[in-house]
Amino acid sequence: LKDSSPLWKFPTDRFVNYFFLNEAFKIIVDEVLNKGTDVQQKVCDWKEPEELAQLLDLELRAAGEPHHRLLERVRDVAKYSIKTSHPRFFNQQFAGVDYHSLAGRFLSEALNTNLYTYEAAPVFVLMENEVLRSLRLLIGWTEGDGIFCPGGSTSNMYAMNLARFQLFPEVKSQGLCGLPRLAIFTSSQSHYSVKKGAGFLGIGTDNVILVKVDDGGCMIPEDLDEKIALVKSQGTVPFIVSCTAGTTVQGAFDPLDRIADVCEKHKLWMHVDGAWGASVLFSKQHRHLLKGIERANSVAWNPHKLLLAGLQCSALLLRDCTGLLKRCHVANATYLFQQDKFYDLDLDIGNKSLQCSRKVDCLKLWLMWKAVGSSGLEERVNKAFFNARYFVQELKKRKGFYLLHEVAPAIKERMMKKGSMMVGYQPLENKVNFFRMVVLSPLVSQEDMDFCLDEIERLGNDM
Amino acid sequence: LKDSSPLWKFPTDRFVNYFFLNEAFKIIVDEVLNKGTDVQQKVCDWKEPEELAQLLDLELRAAGEPHHRLLERVRDVAKYSIKTSHPRFFNQQFAGVDYHSLAGRFLSEALNTNLYTYEAAPVFVLMENEVLRSLRLLIGWTEGDGIFCPGGSTSNMYAMNLARFQLFPEVKSQGLCGLPRLAIFTSSQSHYSVKKGAGFLGIGTDNVILVKVDDGGCMIPEDLDEKIALVKSQGTVPFIVSCTAGTTVQGAFDPLDRIADVCEKHKLWMHVDGAWGASVLFSKQHRHLLKGIERANSVAWNPHKLLLAGLQCSALLLRDCTGLLKRCHVANATYLFQQDKFYDLDLDIGNKSLQCSRKVDCLKLWLMWKAVGSSGLEERVNKAFFNARYFVQELKKRKGFYLLHEVAPAIKERMMKKGSMMVGYQPLENKVNFFRMVVLSPLVSQEDMDFCLDEIERLGNDM
Repeated sequence: LKDSSPLWKFPTDRFVNYFFLNEAFKIIVDEVLNKGTDVQQKVCDWKEPEELAQLLDLELRAAGEPHHRLLERVRDVAKYSIKTSHPRFFNQQFAGVDYHSLAGRFLSEALNTNLYTYEAAPVFVLMENEVLRSLRLLIGWTEGDGIFCPGGSTSNMYAMNLARFQLFPEVKSQGLCGLPRLAIFTSSQSHYSVKKGAGFLGIGTDNVILVKVDDGGCMIPEDLDEKIALVKSQGTVPFIVSCTAGTTVQGAFDPLDRIADVCEKHKLWMHVDGAWGASVLFSKQHRHLLKGIERANSVAWNPHKLLLAGLQCSALLLRDCTGLLKRCHVANATYLFQQDKFYDLDLDIGNKSLQCSRKVDCLKLWLMWKAVGSSGLEERVNKAFFNARYFVQELKKRKGFYLLHEVAPAIKERMMKKGSMMVGYQPLENKVNFFRMVVLSPLVSQEDMDFCLDEIERLGNDM
Repeated sequence: LKDSSPLWKFPTDRFVNYFFLNEAFKIIVDEVLNKGTDVQQKVCDWKEPEELAQLLDLELRAAGEPHHRLLERVRDVAKYSIKTSHPRFFNQQFAGVDYHSLAGRFLSEALNTNLYTYEAAPVFVLMENEVLRSLRLLIGWTEGDGIFCPGGSTSNMYAMNLARFQLFPEVKSQGLCGLPRLAIFTSSQSHYSVKKGAGFLGIGTDNVILVKVDDGGCMIPEDLDEKIALVKSQGTVPFIVSCTAGTTVQGAFDPLDRIADVCEKHKLWMHVDGAWGASVLFSKQHRHLLKGIERANSVAWNPHKLLLAGLQCSALLLRDCTGLLKRCHVANATYLFQQDKFYDLDLDIGNKSLQCSRKVDCLKLWLMWKAVGSSGLEERVNKAFFNARYFVQELKKRKGFYLLHEVAPAIKERMMKKGSMMVGYQPLENKVNFFRMVVLSPLVSQEDMDFCLDEIERLGNDM
C-alpha cells in the first residue's frame, strides 16, 4: 500500500447518473409500457438469431461506452424483446402488466435488499410475513408458515424436501444412503418440476409414480389409492402426493377433497401445486375448484401468473406450525444468524430458506394488493375465466378448427415472423399438436379474442 | 356464460397509471438513490418490530387504495428500509449502486421476460450466452457452458448435482437408493450452502467432510489429500471438492492450483465457490489469488457482490462442452420445448435449468459492463482491495481495538439504533465475537473508513 496515495474518488457524477437513469426510464415507459401494450404494434419483431446478435452488438470490451450509446442499447433491447404485456401475448402463463406491482419492483431493485435478517430487511421481514399470512387465510389456514421461493419449481422441491424430512428427520444429516426406496405420486398431467425435483433431491425420476387422469386432465383418486397400495407392497415408501390445481396444458384442477381422503388413509404429505390455479381462491365464483385445499400440508402459489404480480413471485405455504421449515433448512451460519442479537431471533427468516442471498418478492404483490384490494384481484380472476369461456364458445362456432391441429408448428412459424400475436402449441399424449391458448391479462378484449381466431384461420388458409 | 354480456373493459386509465409510476420513480430517486447514498443521512432508521408494523399498516384488505395513499406507502417502505447503497453499509457482501445496472434492472422488470426459450426471450438467450462466454474467458476457458442461478447457494448445489451425475448418470432416474455413501470435501471456512446443498440433494450434511484451514483461512491441500484417502478406505465414494475463492468471514482464497493436483490425483470434480472472490479475475493486480481456477470443472460467481450488479446475479460456469448441464437437468416438457420448432433448438436454454420460470439476470450485468468496460470493473475491484488494506493499516495504529472484541454485540445494538453505519460481527471457531468489515462500494471514501474506526471507538467508549 502506498501510504501517501489518496484513496480514489469514485469517477462518477451523480447528476450525470440521474440524467441517464431518467432517460432510460422514459425509454422503458415509451417502448415497453406504451408501445408494448398497444394492440396496433407487433408482439414481437422476429429476427433470426444471427441477425439479432449482430443488431445488438453483444460483445463486452475493455472500454466503456458513453451514455447516449447506452441509451440506444436500452432502446434496442426493448425493441427486439417479446412484449409479454401485449394484449395478444397468449403464449405462456404470465402476461399483462400491473403498474402498482411495477412500482414495487422498481423500488425493490433500487433498495437492493437481501431478505435474510430483520436488521438487513426490517420492512420486508414483516411484509413477507403479512403477505404469506393473507395468502394462507385464503386457503383457510389461520396459522402456518411459508416463504417466497425463486419460482414454482423450487416451491415444489421445497415441499418434497419437507415431506421427506418430516418422515425421516435423519435424512438431513445422513442422506438417503441406507433408507428404503421413496416414492412420489403425481398425475400424468402435472408440471415437469416434480420429476426435476425427484432427480435433484436424489429420489430419482423413476420413483415419481404417475397417476391416471380423466378426460378433463384431473387425477383419478381411485388410481392413486391403488398405486400407493401397490408400491407399498413392493417395499417402497410413499411419502408425498403432489396434486395440481391448474395443470399446465388443460388447466385442470385435481379433486383435492377426494385426494385428501386418500392421503389421510395412507398418512401421506399432501402438496398442492397451485402455481397457476391457487389464485382462483380470490374468486367467490370459482374457488369451489379448490375445495379441500385446506386439508393439504403445503401449497405452491405463483402470484406472478394469474394475478400479474411480475416475475418472480412464488410462495410456498405450509399448514405446519411447529417450525418444520426452519428445522429442515437451518444451517445457523454464525456470521448472519448470531444468537446474541438484541431483537427476537424469529425475525431472522433466512434460516427457513435454502438460499443465502434472497431477493424481495413480497413488495410487488403487497403494493398491488393494497392498490386494487382483494376485490380487484377477484375481478382479475373472474375476467380471465370469462375470456377463456368466451373463446371456447366462439371456437365451437367455427367449423374448420379441428382440421388445423396438424399444422400448428407451421402456423406458429408464420405467426412469429409476422409478429401479430403469440400462442403456444403442444401435443398431448397420443393427440397431435394443438394450440394452447393462455388468456389471463385483463387488457385482453373481446376484439382480441376474435382477432386470435381470425388470425389462426388466416395464417392457415393456404395450407 | 351470459351470451349477451359484453366482456369487461379493464377499469384503468393508462395516463393515471403512467402518472403514478412516474411519481413513484421520483420518490425512488429521491429517497433511495439521493438520500440513501448521502453520507449525512442515516444508514437505517431503526424501529422495533411492533412499532414498524404499525407505522407501515401492513394489513391487506378487500378494497383498494387511491394513488396518493400508495405513493405515501412507497415513501414509507423506502424510509424504513436499510440503505444498502449508503457509503457506511459495511454489513454484508453486497453494497453500493451502479446506475447502469439499475437501468438494466428496471428494463428487465418492465419487460417481465421469462428466460426459457428463444421465442420467448430472443434478446436474453443470446445475451446470457455472451455474458457467460465473457466470464468464462476471464477464467481462461475458450469454451464451456453455464447458466444464471438464483444465488450462489443454488449455483453450488447445481455443481454438486452435476458432479454426482457425471459419476453416476443413473442417479437422475434411480436416485441414491442402492448407491454407496457419497462424500463432499470443503474447508471448515466454506459457505454454509455446501451443507444445505448436501441435505437437500439427499447426500446428508454428515457426508460433508471439512478440511482444515491455515491461519489465513485457506484450505490445506495435504489435509484434503489425507481425508480423501481415509474416506475411500472406509468405502465411501468422494465425488466433489468445493473450494472457496473468498471465504465469507476472512475473505481467504483456497490454493486452487494445489487443490487441483489433489483432485486430479483422485479424479474428483473440482468446484470453486467464487461467489465473492471470482470477480477478482478482472484485476491484473490481484488475479494471482485465483491461480489454478482454469483447472476447475465448475465455478460459481456472483457479480452482485463485488461488482455491484445488483441482487440477484449469480453465474454457474462450466468447463464441460459435452452438454452435461442439459443432460443432467432436461425434462423436455412438450408444451415449452417442442421438437418441431422452426429454429435451432439449442437456443431453448430452459432445459439447462432446474427452474421453469427464470428471471433475466444477465441484462443488468451486460449493460453495466458495456457502460464501464472491463477496465472499469477492474478499477472497482482494485479500489475495494485498496480500501480494505487502508482500513487494516489504520486499525493497526489504534491500540484499543483488540479489547473491544468481547462487546461487539452491544456495540452493534448501539450502532443500529443510532443508524450511523452498519457492520456485521461474528465469532470464528474458538475466538470471541469480532466485527466483520465488508468494504466494496466504490462510493466509500477515506473519510468513511476513518469514520468507521472512530465510531466503533465512540460506541464502545463507556463499556
